[in-house]
Formats: sequence, structure tokens, C-alpha cells
Amino acid sequence: MLTHKNTSALFTPHTIAVVGASATPGKIGNIVVKNLLSAGFSGHILPINPKEGSILSLPTFSNIADIPAQHRPLDLAVICLPAANVLAAIHQLGEQHTRAAIIISAGFKETGGPGAALELEIKHAAEHYGMAVLGPNSFGLANTASGMNATFAKDSPLPGNIGFFSQSGAFCAAMFDWAKDENIGFSSFVSLGNKMALDESDVLAHMTEDPATKVIVGYLESIESGTRFLHNAQKATRKNPVILLKAGRTPAGARAASSHTGALIGEDMAFEAAFRQTGVIRAHSMEGLFTMAQGFACQPLPKGPGIAVVTNAGGPGIIATDACTAAGLTLARFAPSTIERLKGMLPAYASVFNPVDVVGDGTAKNLADALAVVLQDPNVHMALVLAAPTARIPVEDVAACVSEAIKGCEKPIFACLMGGNSAEPGKRLFAANNIPCFAFPEPAIDVMGAMYRHSQWRETPPPVEVNYRRDLSRARKEVDAARDQPGLEVVEFQALGILSAYEMPMLESKLARTSDEACHIAKQLGLPVALKIASPQISHKTDVGGVVLHLDSLEKVRAAFIDITNRATRMRPEAYIAGCLVQAMAPAGAREVIIGFKRDRLFGPMVMFGLGGIHVETFKDISSRLAPLSLEDVHDMVREIKAFPILAGMRGQKPVKFTAIEDILLIMSKLALDFPEIEEAECNPVLADENGAYVADIRLVLARKQPLA
Amino acid sequence: MLTHKNTSALFTPHTIAVVGASATPGKIGNIVVKNLLSAGFSGHILPINPKEGSILSLPTFSNIADIPAQHRPLDLAVICLPAANVLAAIHQLGEQHTRAAIIISAGFKETGGPGAALELEIKHAAEHYGMAVLGPNSFGLANTASGMNATFAKDSPLPGNIGFFSQSGAFCAAMFDWAKDENIGFSSFVSLGNKMALDESDVLAHMTEDPATKVIVGYLESIESGTRFLHNAQKATRKNPVILLKAGRTPAGARAASSHTGALIGEDMAFEAAFRQTGVIRAHSMEGLFTMAQGFACQPLPKGPGIAVVTNAGGPGIIATDACTAAGLTLARFAPSTIERLKGMLPAYASVFNPVDVVGDGTAKNLADALAVVLQDPNVHMALVLAAPTARIPVEDVAACVSEAIKGCEKPIFACLMGGNSAEPGKRLFAANNIPCFAFPEPAIDVMGAMYRHSQWRETPPPVEVNYRRDLSRARKEVDAARDQPGLEVVEFQALGILSAYEMPMLESKLARTSDEACHIAKQLGLPVALKIASPQISHKTDVGGVVLHLDSLEKVRAAFIDITNRATRMRPEAYIAGCLVQAMAPAGAREVIIGFKRDRLFGPMVMFGLGGIHVETFKDISSRLAPLSLEDVHDMVREIKAFPILAGMRGQKPVKFTAIEDILLIMSKLALDFPEIEEAECNPVLADENGAYVADIRLVLARKQPLA
Repeated sequence: MLTHKNTSALFTPHTIAVVGASATPGKIGNIVVKNLLSAGFSGHILPINPKEGSILSLPTFSNIADIPAQHRPLDLAVICLPAANVLAAIHQLGEQHTRAAIIISAGFKETGGPGAALELEIKHAAEHYGMAVLGPNSFGLANTASGMNATFAKDSPLPGNIGFFSQSGAFCAAMFDWAKDENIGFSSFVSLGNKMALDESDVLAHMTEDPATKVIVGYLESIESGTRFLHNAQKATRKNPVILLKAGRTPAGARAASSHTGALIGEDMAFEAAFRQTGVIRAHSMEGLFTMAQGFACQPLPKGPGIAVVTNAGGPGIIATDACTAAGLTLARFAPSTIERLKGMLPAYASVFNPVDVVGDGTAKNLADALAVVLQDPNVHMALVLAAPTARIPVEDVAACVSEAIKGCEKPIFACLMGGNSAEPGKRLFAANNIPCFAFPEPAIDVMGAMYRHSQWRETPPPVEVNYRRDLSRARKEVDAARDQPGLEVVEFQALGILSAYEMPMLESKLARTSDEACHIAKQLGLPVALKIASPQISHKTDVGGVVLHLDSLEKVRAAFIDITNRATRMRPEAYIAGCLVQAMAPAGAREVIIGFKRDRLFGPMVMFGLGGIHVETFKDISSRLAPLSLEDVHDMVREIKAFPILAGMRGQKPVKFTAIEDILLIMSKLALDFPEIEEAECNPVLADENGAYVADIRLVLARKQPLA
Repeated sequence: MLTHKNTSALFTPHTIAVVGASATPGKIGNIVVKNLLSAGFSGHILPINPKEGSILSLPTFSNIADIPAQHRPLDLAVICLPAANVLAAIHQLGEQHTRAAIIISAGFKETGGPGAALELEIKHAAEHYGMAVLGPNSFGLANTASGMNATFAKDSPLPGNIGFFSQSGAFCAAMFDWAKDENIGFSSFVSLGNKMALDESDVLAHMTEDPATKVIVGYLESIESGTRFLHNAQKATRKNPVILLKAGRTPAGARAASSHTGALIGEDMAFEAAFRQTGVIRAHSMEGLFTMAQGFACQPLPKGPGIAVVTNAGGPGIIATDACTAAGLTLARFAPSTIERLKGMLPAYASVFNPVDVVGDGTAKNLADALAVVLQDPNVHMALVLAAPTARIPVEDVAACVSEAIKGCEKPIFACLMGGNSAEPGKRLFAANNIPCFAFPEPAIDVMGAMYRHSQWRETPPPVEVNYRRDLSRARKEVDAARDQPGLEVVEFQALGILSAYEMPMLESKLARTSDEACHIAKQLGLPVALKIASPQISHKTDVGGVVLHLDSLEKVRAAFIDITNRATRMRPEAYIAGCLVQAMAPAGAREVIIGFKRDRLFGPMVMFGLGGIHVETFKDISSRLAPLSLEDVHDMVREIKAFPILAGMRGQKPVKFTAIEDILLIMSKLALDFPEIEEAECNPVLADENGAYVADIRLVLARKQPLA
């Protein structure tokens, strides 16, 4: 997907009009002009104000129409007007072919009905003129590469390599403030506001192409287009780490998000899958987002999971060890030469194994020297220096010695200075040397863990969709036939045609309309067989005693047919009884699994896998992925459920044929993508043994028929 | 358990000798004297130094023997000598009947073999003299109530209500530093060092009795005595919150702890149970420990789970909502009158529902006013004020207005000022007013969640052990008989006697030595029956085909007996075959559960419960408690496994008789406590249905016979 053709005018404009510029200090229309000036924007700034002659020494224009021809078409207009005046301004700007606008004004969708209607009118107008519009209700946009700060922040961000976007203006303000203190800079800084037109996917695409951006960081409450997001995120993470905090996770949180932004909130499980499958790094707290932004921005990616911890304190070293395990890192095992070198340089009683402990007597120089040595060890892929405040070690010294000792090192290095404000000078010195410094060891190690996982992601080849053979035109005919029936549910005997068009492996079965026919089919299939009631109105067959298994003689088949159909007629007099499905019996010792899909409103079909029977219900032990599925996806899906050992064979049982289950998962993915008309599908049970996997029952639910929007 | 009789001399001494006092600034023996002087200790300080005439203007004594009679017996000696001289000093002090000592000197157990041996000698000497000794390798001890700072910290802690202890000196230093900056004070501050004599349980007991201590906070890597800890923690948490960070959690971490302190590290699962059952609040990170210490120390406990969030920022409000759900709190539903009052006072577009959002236009006064209103709502039990930096709200103003508005309020109030250093003045003002202030919302809410859970714990009546009827002398006879057999394993037919002494409900069974006897017993029990091989050498009966179920005729019983015993003789020629156990069949439709216990090296027997069959192995879905079990414990144990719905009855099945399972759990607890000779026990399966629960098989493992230490 392409971003809006005029997005570049938003990020790198030459001429900017501030519509609603103000001479009154503290007003947003004044702060924006001030910020544009002080950030060193080299293009033209045109304040529009009907009353003032000049604002902050810039000559003003009383009206959009007054903008001189040499400045037209305008690249960008920053709109700070009252909500009621914005639509007119968009029309005026549009008539002049203005390429892009940032609507800072609030009072639209976020305030409810009338505001939402006004926003919709503005959206249509902007589309009419082909204008790229950010906002409304935006904190603004800054792009340090072009020296542009079109925000109403207190001052300008430092230049740097982080591309940041946020759905919350307050979040922008907090990030702004915090980053400055940590000496962290931004390539661009975007407040999405109400996302009337431009959204996270557009910004993501822009930042992926922006050479100044090396880390993409965002805060979201909703995602506008699941498809575009998946596509753009997939592309982005191959080039840069993308770190997102998605709020509104829990049901209570999701409700608050809905009422706040009026946005559509997908379910968290789908978000989890979307982030995992596109390689987006999910922050689980505000602090986590900030610290990950810092770590990824300041340090290179580790080339392996081995971490070295160098400390002057045994206790915190143990805490760090705990945290490494939790973060999926391993304490590196040092080479013998490293251990010898450490022995030669550290005080007596120092521990020369990992974590290296220079003990309370150790000096800042001891810490720095030890760090330099362990970083040369090939088993060490990253390091944490962890200092407790002691009389022997002023923390500034630690920062100074360490920063000096590791110059030119290409492995990621983090620092932790424990204690309170006394660590501040040391922290500042570390920040000045681009070494992330924390007050506690755990957050530092969490960030390093995320960096290692991302380095693994970058090495994983992109997933490839598997294309399965299928008879699409036959499937189309069968789906259309099912849609012509009343009701949305498609029960087993009706769905067989669709599945066979996909060459789905099924337990062989045929519809018998009479008991004679049942016996005839049973003879063909070979005894024993199962009989199942066939009625479009009866989807829960066992509720009406509609399933009888293990029929091992034709007499039993005949009796069961009569029995099942009579009982169904009696219990569900309204139902049309087509007869019974006669089905070959599952092989003995087969294990039941369940395979299905469900359509997420945002991200589309999500395919699920789990052990069958009461397990799915009780243990909620399922794996899931958004379609399309790759070979790696299905390989992982069958293995990541807790019940995997049962499939692999416990107590002498043979393992099931996993590739057969994987094939069914791939077929479901294909079916879901081919037919948006199918809302849900469930193969339950699928019977798997060492020779194969066979669908024993299936149920489809069709989407409500509605005119396409 | 009582703490050492001289513990009070450690915390509230009148006379203190500093053995190894130094005139050289920066030396530990100098810092300790300086700290004692500057903290305002009102008793006598006697520096011992053979060379100097005075230290820091105090007259010195050249030798312990020179201490004048009026100062004897000494209350406390602080020992700062080289390790090699400590034993002699302890002897000298002991001869003078010195009541307590703090050994700051390092170079003992933490350095390995010879140091450990020396430490043991010192321990024996101290025991001989009845001296209460803290350390060695201790950072010292401070007690603000008596103006005593016998540590080598940089300065003195503020007076306050936190009792702090730590196994790591570096952790002490970090806590010291951090607390000062947050305006957090301590009643006492104890560095446990190597815990040669006094340990966490002693300190816990002292702090529980100390009227100045309201919150107990500790860092541990090991626990010396599980029994004493459980007893003292149980008592402590009824009076004060006890918050502990236990490091060395994961296997990797535990290894580091062992090599660091040479201490015994129990398994984390037992720690988890010990903390939960005694109401200890477990911190999961260093930051978590610090922030919980602050929250509990500064604010009262909430009286319910209802939280109000007052903010000027929608996004962070949503993040806070997510965090509340995760922390087990509920966003309070405001009374209509509260909503009306908020409507009357807040700007347009403000959200008057929870979270209250005064929006970006809101002022600090708006925030404070809204907070004051919601705190009066009876549904609100605690509140968080959450401010993003905006042009409209300088964060100092937030702190000033909020601190003023909530004066006299008895509900807990937390603050979060987002952003960087610009929030510092506001944070300081909040700290001065004892309102914990955080940079991010999630940690604040986590602390509030812990405070709510602790308030619930305080209202829960202490657990009462259930006393079950049992024939102890008969059980003793049976256990002794089992111990007389070779081997440690006690198989089913041998264990039946022990269980019947406890009136354990079992499937009725009898040992048959011949096939005739088997038929006779089967007739008595009623058909069908099961036959199981009975051999002390065969514990995995199914491995030799030693179990046959559903025998519904006497002919089948006879044939099965011959078959089983023949096969066992053939497959395990070395085994003594006693015959077969004839057992009544389990009722149809019974569910299998597993009940057992295992002895933790530190905390004693831990009783476990889970669903039987492959579930326990595959899903590791078990619940566990340390014995003794209360009625509440067993009630919770059967309900907290994920498979509970299966026991409660799915798809029309009746629920099992839960009280019957609970009885078996209580019997196991009793058996474990009565017979330390039994190392492990496992009833597997126990068959439960709506009428009862019956042990169908049991296996005991005896402890190795060894002379009692």
C-alpha cells in the first residue's frame, strides 16, 4: 500500500502557513510559530491572522486568500483555529491546491456526535482536494532533519534516529520531556490525533523509507486498517525495529478506549498475533516503551544471547542473573583466557566468573577494566555494568571509566547505577556517551532481551504463503448454494462439498436418505460405521442423540438409522431431516484435535489449533495465527500448545503425523482467504494418528448477507 | 520461637564499643565512629584502638580489657578488625559478658573454605558466651529511634516507619541512597551479612514487636530456618505488611546464589507457597520492592478495590485502566451525586466518569478539585492523580494543589507526574507531603493492588489446622514395619495398613495369596473386581502387565490371577511375589485425581493436588500448599487448578463430592506431619464421583535412615 501522495509535504515542506497564528504568548497559535522559528526551519513561515500585522517579527497575512502567488501552492498548513472554522479553512486551502495540513484544533470526534459529523465533512473535503491531513486534535509534527517543529510542545526535540508517533497528545508531551533529559533524539515526531485521514500505517510507511529513522516507536489505542498495518509493519520490521505500546488491552481498558476515541478496538489476541507475525516488538508498559526506545536507539543489536554482567555487588548480581533467565538471555560462559586475564587484574576475593564481581573493595577502574576484557570474549554478545554506591566508587567515576574503556566496542553495553539522585551525574555522563543507564538491573536486561529477539527476527526469512491445489469454481458453487439456504449455519453434510473442493482429508461419508440406503453405503465403506443425523437445523447433533458410533453389523445400522431419525423428528419437530450421514469409523487410538478459524474485525481470519475434547474448553490451550499461514506458522502452531506431548505420543503411543495436521491448517487458511463469506469454520474433531489426520465433523457459519459498503 | 535474648542489646544499646576504630578518614573503623556520633547516639561510644589517643575527639581504649568497669558489661561491640583478629576479639568480649556484637569484617564464609571454618569457630564462641551476633560481612545496623547508626553508610537514614533488612550490603547501600531522595525514613536498618547467628527470622520477630516499625521490607537470597521463618512471618503479617524480594529465583539465579553465599536455596515453588501462606508480599523486582516500601510506608491501606483515576490525559488514562485490571483493582463506579458535582466544576468536554479526564485544557486546580470530590464517593477506596506535562499545567502546581486538596483524607492517594526531570520539583513536593509519586502509571497501580490484597489478608482469619481422628500407635507400628523392610519404597499392599490407621477412604481390597483366595475375596467384595500384582519390588505394576480391570466372573478372576503372577515371575524373576491385591472396581464415570506430598528441604512437607492421568504430566496443572493445611487451604486447592470445571461437571456430568477430596488432602497433611520418616507420598489415582472419593493406589517413599543430627 502506498501512503498518501502528499505525505512528503507533511514531513519536508518548504512553505508553511500557520492558520490561526496568534500574537498572544501561551496560545497554541503563538507557540507553533515560535517553535517553527526556534527549531531553525529554513523555509517560509506564513502566519495567518486577520488582526495582527506581525507575529514574532514575521509579517502576517490576514487571510488564506492573501497568500502571495510565489508561495502557492502551499506545502503545508498548520491549523490552530476553533473547531467551527476549520472546514472553511480546508476549503480555502484546497482551492489553492495546498498539499498537506495538520489540524491541531480539537473538538471533533473525541467530543461525540456533532463533532464527529463535522470531522466527517472535513475528511470528505480533504479527500476532494487530495490534501494529506494529519489530525484533527493533534499535538503536531516535528521533523528534525528539515528543522521543522510544527508542534505546540514546550521546545524542540533533539535530532536523533527515533521516529515516534502517538495517538495521544499527552503521551507525546511526556515522551518529549523524558527524551530530552535522557539526551535522546528524534528523526520525526508525529501526533496522530483523531486519525481522520492519515493513520499509523501511513506514518509507519513513511518512517520505513526515511533514512534518518533507525528505530520506530509508537503509542496506539486502535488500528484503523488491519490489512494496511500488517503489510506496512511486515515491511518496516525487516529494516528497523518497531516498538509499540497498544493500550486498551484488557476488556475494561478496551471500553475506556472506545469511549475515548470512538475507535474500533480489535481483540487483544488478534493484536498479539498481528504484532508477533509482523515482528513488531510489543511494549507492555509505558516505562517499557520508553526504555526500549532508548536501548534500540543508542546501542547496536546483539549478535547472540550471551550476556556478561560486571558488578561490584553480589546481591544485585544475583538479581541480574534471575532477570537474564526471564528475558531469554544466557549468562555467557567465559573462555579460559578471559578468566585468566580477569584473575590477573582484579582484587582478591573477586569473582572472575559470570557475573564478574569486583566486590565492595573494587574501584571504578576495576569495573571498567573487567568490562573491557569480557567484551573481547567471543561468547559475550552484550554486557551490563552494574554498580552499587560504595565509599570506594563514586558513580561519576564509573561512568567516566566505563565510557572510556569501551570506546570502539561494537557490542551493546548497558549500565545500571543503583541508588537515588547521587547517581544522577553518572547517569548524565552515560547518557552523553549514548550508554543507556538505569536505576535497577531488571529493566536494562528486559531491553537487552528484546534487542536479542529482534536480531533473531531480522535473520528469519520472511514467511511465504503456501498455495494449495483447490477447485475454486466448484467451491464457489458450493458456497453460493449454502448461501441460498435460509440461516447462516452450514452443517456437516452440507459443507462436505466445499471441503472436498479443497481436497480436505475427511473420514469417508455419504448421505443416506433411507435405512436401506444406509445399509448399502455401510457395506461400501466397510463396517464398522458411524451414523449422524443430517438436518440443516440441527448443528448440535449429540443434543438430540443424533450420533451413534461403532455400528458393526448391518442390522445395527438399520436400527440406528430408524432410531436416530425418529428421535430427531420427535425432539425437533420443526427441523427438516434429510436422513443420516454414514461415516467410516475413526482408526482406534486416534487423538482428537480441533482446527478452526474466526474472522477478526480488524485483522481478518485467525486460524486456531488445539487438542480436542474437553481440553480446549478447560485449558484454553490453543495456538493461533492470522492468515495467510506459512509453513513455519503451521509447524510452530502444532508444537506450541501445552498438550503437544500428547500428540508426540506419551506412554508408548506413536506420534501423530504432524504434517497431515499442518496440511489441514493450511487448507483452512486458504479457505478463509478465498471466501470472506465464511465468517467462522470449525473442524471438530479432527482425528489424527501416525498415518494421517481426518476431519470427522465440520461446521461453517456464513457472514450476514449485506450490501457491500 | 523467641529471638535471641540479647537481641534488644543490638537494637537499643546504651554503651557501644567500636573494636578496630580508626583515626583515618574513609576507613570503615572511622566511618562507623563518625556515623555513631553524627546520628546523635546518646549513650557511650568507646573506640578501641591500640595506637591512637583519641578518634574524632573521643578518648580511645587501647584494648578491650581496658574498658572501665562502669561500662561493663558492654551492650554492643561493633567489630571492624581484619578477619584473622575477630575470633580473639569475640573471646575477649565474651569474657567481659558483652551482650551483642556486629561483625562488619569480611573474609569469612563468602570467600570459601578457610573463611567458612573460621566463621564456624566464631559462631561456637559466640554461642558459648550467649552473645547475639549480627554478621559477619555486615554493612551494620541503624536504629533511628535510639539515634544509633552503626553502619558504614555515607550518612544516616531518616527516621521513619520502615524496618529494613538485607542479605546484601550493596542492596543496603542502594536502598539507603534511594530512600533519602524520596524522603523515606526507617525505624531500623539491618544488614544481615553472612547470617552466622542472627538471621531474617530473628530480625522479623524483633521488627514485629518494635512499635516504631509499621512496614517490614527485606531482601533475601536464602532463608536459614524454614520453620522459624514461617512462624515469625505468620505473626508479623497480622500486624504489619512484610514485603520481601527473594533473589535466586530461577535455576540459573539459584546457582549464582549458592556460590555467592554458600547458603541453602530452597526451590522457588516452596518459597512461593511459604510467602502466600504467611501473607508475605513478594516483590518481583528491585524496583517493585522499593516502590512498595514507599507506598505502604506513606499511605493507609485501602478499604476496598475501587480506584478513581483523575487525569488531564486520555491516553494515559487508558493505560491506567489496563493496569488497574491487571492489578486486581476495579475502576470505581461513581455515585450519581459525584458525577453531578464533577459536571458542575470541570471544563466542557471533560469526562466525568472514571477515569475522570479534565482534558488538556484543565488546570491543576481542576485536577485537585475533581480528586477531592471523587475521594468523597463511598465507592472510591483509593485514588491516582495522573498528570501529563501540558502548557496549562506546571507540574509543581499539580503537587501543590493536590497536596492541599486532600488534607485529612484517609484514603490512599498516589500521584504520577509523567515526563522527565521537569517533573522533579513536583515529585519533591509530593514526597514532602508523603504522597508517593511515580513517573509512570503502572508501577503506582501495582503498589495499590498489593496494598489492597494486604488489606484483604489482614481481614482473613488466621488458618486453623484441622485435627483428624487417627490411630497413631497403629500407624507407628505399620511405618516401623515398613522401615524394617529393605528399600525405601513402600508399595500399595504394604501401605494399606498405614492408610487405614488414618481412616483413609480406599477402594476396598484384600491380598490374595492363591487363585482360590482371589475368587473367595472377589465374591465377598462383589463382582466386578480388579486384580493387581502384589510385590514389594514392583512399584510400576502396569509395566509388567500387573493390573487387570473389570473382571466380571470368578473364572476370569482365577485366570487373571494365574496370568498376572506367572507373567510377573517371568519378567521380574528377582521379585518376591506376595500374590495379587483384589480390589473393588471404581464406580463408572469417576474422575481421576492425584494427591501427594513431597518434603521441601527448607519448609517441610508440601501437599499437592491435580487432575490425574496424562493431565498432571502434560499441563503441570497442580495446586500446592505447605502443611499443615487448613479448611480454607484445601477448599482453595481443589478449586484453583485449571481443570476445576472437569471436577465441577462438564456436559451434564454431576460435580464430584469436593469435601471428600478435601478430606484426603487433610489426611495427607496430617500423615506428612506425623511421620517425618515418610519422604514422599502419592495417591494416584484417587477416584472421585458425586458420592465420594477413594484412593485406588498409593505409593510411599521413606526417608533414608540416618542418625539424627
